Amino acid sequence: MDHDLEHLAARVRDFADRRDWGQFHSPRNLVLALVGEVGELAAEVQWLTDDEVVAALTKAESRSRIEDELADVLIYLTRLADQCDIDLVAAAHAKVNRNEERYPESKAKGVATKYTDI
Amino acid sequence: MDHDLEHLAARVRDFADRRDWGQFHSPRNLVLALVGEVGELAAEVQWLTDDEVVAALTKAESRSRIEDELADVLIYLTRLADQCDIDLVAAAHAKVNRNEERYPESKAKGVATKYTDI
Amino acid sequence: MDHDLEHLAARVRDFADRRDWGQFHSPRNLVLALVGEVGELAAEVQWLTDDEVVAALTKAESRSRIEDELADVLIYLTRLADQCDIDLVAAAHAKVNRNEERYPESKAKGVATKYTDI
Amino acid sequence: MDHDLEHLAARVRDFADRRDWGQFHSPRNLVLALVGEVGELAAEVQWLTDDEVVAALTKAESRSRIEDELADVLIYLTRLADQCDIDLVAAAHAKVNRNEERYPESKAKGVATKYTDI
Repeated sequence: MDHDLEHLAARVRDFADRRDWGQFHSPRNLVLALVGEVGELAAEVQWLTDDEVVAALTKAESRSRIEDELADVLIYLTRLADQCDIDLVAAAHAKVNRNEERYPESKAKGVATKYTDI
Repeated sequence: MDHDLEHLAARVRDFADRRDWGQFHSPRNLVLALVGEVGELAAEVQWLTDDEVVAALTKAESRSRIEDELADVLIYLTRLADQCDIDLVAAAHAKVNRNEERYPESKAKGVATKYTDI
Repeated sequence: MDHDLEHLAARVRDFADRRDWGQFHSPRNLVLALVGEVGELAAEVQWLTDDEVVAALTKAESRSRIEDELADVLIYLTRLADQCDIDLVAAAHAKVNRNEERYPESKAKGVATKYTDI
Repeated sequence: MDHDLEHLAARVRDFADRRDWGQFHSPRNLVLALVGEVGELAAEVQWLTDDEVVAALTKAESRSRIEDELADVLIYLTRLADQCDIDLVAAAHAKVNRNEERYPESKAKGVATKYTDI
């Protein structure tokens, strides 16, 4: 199984190019589309308890809906980064590097406090 | 450069484990955190024209802020999928497969109409 | 026409009470529901130019869809504030008071800069 | 105390006019701004349990932050509706009217099922 995000980005780019959709895919439009997909994801879990989410993930139909919403978020996020010529995975690793400094284990262990407050 | 999303997921998991943050990372909490990051991304472009976004991407400081927001979205999305034991990239490819059927090039070319309406 | 938001809040509360929905309406659940509705609103305008939004507002069908999404956002926002026992309109006026100080006309005129940067 | 939303809308319009901010307040820009504020609201409750939200609402500082975020959401929502020339409260009452039909008490009582599924 291939988990390379650049391969997904290239595939999504090709998908859009063949449909001449580049004209719709400005960064702002894609942010709005991303918001729409995150909204659908939120709607999947809005009335569920944490236990009910766990249960939903064990049933084929509800699991598949959640997978689908996560997929849509990733697709638009990948497309957005690609249209901005940003290397998404590299940016994420750079951010985790920074978080390693912001949240030293000794101070951050077991607390959900923002780095500006620890 | 490594663009494998499973490697990022493993790194984020390790980061959280060493801080004992699994207790905070229920799917619902992570959806809310994702919403927070998407909100910061939206705030970056809320008052800009499309041309101003392009210009912002050419300046180191504003480009770096946008990279950072995209990174945060990807980190939480990756963590959310990991906590749900969902293969995010596989789910995205499966969705693109479906979109290939929903949006045949002949009908979808140059139009932003939803598949339910074409 | 009655534009009192407390009357709307009371009506929505009664609507929920008669259906025994208070059990679902925790603040966190309502934030997620609000996110879902904001996502639907974003989806309405995601592929449109500013001019096309103006045009959409002149056509009965698309105008009605936008009205509907705005209504859903207000309904959940009102319900959320009510469940938190927060006076939403008073809070908004208090915030505008603060913004009057943060954004003096002489400095804020014609610029979209955040108060922390002016 | 005045809870009339049209009065708030008029005040926000005047606030924006005096700063010449109408140029920034296209519907799409305001949707993005709304998303930013909803993101801040989500961030307030992302790591809290339902009980911790209730506790946060009893402490002056955290209550005030939540009031502030709700206020920001209402301010942008009001401004957005005003720029679209939409009567927000009337639209909400019309939607509740529709929901009365979609969710008859006999069928909706105690269940969080969407009207399309009941």
